[in-house]
Amino acid sequence: MGWAERLQRLRDDYAARDLDAFVVSTPANLTYLCGFVGTAGLLADVARRARLIVDGRYWAAARRGSEEGRLAAVDVVPVTDRYDATLAAVLRELGPARVGYEADHVTVATLRQWRGAAPGATWVPTESLIARRRMIKDASEIAALRRAGKALSEIARGLRLLVREGRTEREVARAIDEAIDRAGFSENAFPTIVASGPNSALPHARPTDRRLRAGDLVVLDFGGRLDGYCGDLTRTAAIGQVGADARRLFDAVREAQAAAIAAVRAGILSSGVDAAARQVLETRGLAEAFLHATGHGLGLDVHEAPRLAREDPDRATPLEAGMVCTIEPGAYVDGLGGVRLEDDVLVTAEGCEVLTDAPRDLLLV
Amino acid sequence: MGWAERLQRLRDDYAARDLDAFVVSTPANLTYLCGFVGTAGLLADVARRARLIVDGRYWAAARRGSEEGRLAAVDVVPVTDRYDATLAAVLRELGPARVGYEADHVTVATLRQWRGAAPGATWVPTESLIARRRMIKDASEIAALRRAGKALSEIARGLRLLVREGRTEREVARAIDEAIDRAGFSENAFPTIVASGPNSALPHARPTDRRLRAGDLVVLDFGGRLDGYCGDLTRTAAIGQVGADARRLFDAVREAQAAAIAAVRAGILSSGVDAAARQVLETRGLAEAFLHATGHGLGLDVHEAPRLAREDPDRATPLEAGMVCTIEPGAYVDGLGGVRLEDDVLVTAEGCEVLTDAPRDLLLV
Repeated sequence: MGWAERLQRLRDDYAARDLDAFVVSTPANLTYLCGFVGTAGLLADVARRARLIVDGRYWAAARRGSEEGRLAAVDVVPVTDRYDATLAAVLRELGPARVGYEADHVTVATLRQWRGAAPGATWVPTESLIARRRMIKDASEIAALRRAGKALSEIARGLRLLVREGRTEREVARAIDEAIDRAGFSENAFPTIVASGPNSALPHARPTDRRLRAGDLVVLDFGGRLDGYCGDLTRTAAIGQVGADARRLFDAVREAQAAAIAAVRAGILSSGVDAAARQVLETRGLAEAFLHATGHGLGLDVHEAPRLAREDPDRATPLEAGMVCTIEPGAYVDGLGGVRLEDDVLVTAEGCEVLTDAPRDLLLV
Repeated sequence: MGWAERLQRLRDDYAARDLDAFVVSTPANLTYLCGFVGTAGLLADVARRARLIVDGRYWAAARRGSEEGRLAAVDVVPVTDRYDATLAAVLRELGPARVGYEADHVTVATLRQWRGAAPGATWVPTESLIARRRMIKDASEIAALRRAGKALSEIARGLRLLVREGRTEREVARAIDEAIDRAGFSENAFPTIVASGPNSALPHARPTDRRLRAGDLVVLDFGGRLDGYCGDLTRTAAIGQVGADARRLFDAVREAQAAAIAAVRAGILSSGVDAAARQVLETRGLAEAFLHATGHGLGLDVHEAPRLAREDPDRATPLEAGMVCTIEPGAYVDGLGGVRLEDDVLVTAEGCEVLTDAPRDLLLV
């Protein structure tokens, strides 16, 4: 799908809400709509012309990208002083208007500034207008996500060479980061997690100088960005002999993941996939040990819609073909350790295509 | 300064605004107030008791940190379903109350959820309450920032070994990242910038596969986090012979940086430091080439208050002893390239202490 079509869908979406103009501020939404990558910037679509409003750090990049066809053919509007003043100047063309904004990104303070700068506008909050479109990946996005999944699987297959008794968590994380780099990813999708022994019981641990030792469970969670799109994968290793309890923990998570993957298909609720994993862990007495959601959407952001979580059915999202999600149940028990297994799947009409295909067994080191 | 004193200052600050309770949501502010490090979490200070509200990913980490004294002795309140519901339950103890929140972090959508969940509360926006306190570093913070500056300078002194004709920008960036890792930083403070030749004219370029070649200017901007605090440093290299224009560009930026550093002292406005750098570049005909602000505060975040930018005096911040800022003017000319020099300074009563002390000459490779 080209930029023009994405922009047209946004126009359809906001026109359906009776809006005259729309301001996009979420960085990944800017990338989605016009290719621009930056930590700041606004896309203001006013009178059917899209303007990319950026400060001096990005002028040359936006101009060149636009000229060279890497960006949509948007008008680049330079901010010379403050974003709110430039935005107000762009909106002034329109006269009094209903202007939509991304209420799930714009802070209360920023909205106050915009109101002050553009008093003629009626600011209308919207939520997830673009996120909902981004959930369904088009062919080129799916191709990029397949490449990311494949390259990440290759790294997972080589984990045996990186995870060693006596190495510190940081050393292993560094080795994984190097592998991500060598595999052609432009950057990590998030800071690599290597959590060993007691640390493995912390779902979001950061690598420490703790050395891997016999009896440890080790959670290895890493991801990379390839052509803009993210892959995300987790495997669990055991150093030397681990006890029967640790084994049971692993087997339960493995079974939970298999159940969740088997549940994925167009039409099921996001909460239904979560329930499939949760149920397995509950029957193993591990309900309290599963401390997070089963998965999340994957795309330009490493965490995006939909969320596969325990949720009321009316808040949940029905899965559709073309969605790409992680499936990553885990179980964390203080004193024993933690296990997580994560793969990336593409939802299809009848089920799913698993984009990451490295072995899922407990990695015995 | 201990956690208790930081929390007391917050209480003083919000009591002065006639608030009964306060909700902190900015991640670095949570770290500042109680030591917690995470991508989510709320600190709700209600009835003079601080509760750290975190989801399952962080329960064990928060509990352990609290027990082991790495976190303030806060009550850890687990989120079992949704943050807004747990927050509302905590606020209910208080009955109807005026509750302050961080309007520069809370989105319009989140505020709407909080309002819905806790209708008894009157939600009062505040801005920069904690950011203003964080601007003035205490002794332990200054010590950490000195260590970060020193370790980063060591890397800068070794740049000559990493920057080579024929290497790609990504290869050089990777070598710098490894040096950051070896120097004991826990992580990069931001993705390393290596921008060569035409790319050096883009202030916020990301490393590409372009190979460094004779005649290039190369901007090298990197930073790391040490004991939680960030250092940030930029040097510019020249590969082989560069023209007289490039030399003049470098000399102008070097002089602008020296002027800005000389201007720093307690009492000067943030905009005054910016003006000192800008004036030098203006007299060299480079006013249009200086595409960003002169600097930013440095601490738990790599970009924090104050901003040293062109600004109305009434929006500017008077510098105070104990502030730590970057001083980083630059000049970017399409067709010629870019130059930036960045050092970190601690504001003192009479001037400043430069925390990064590697040579500032054009690095001839």
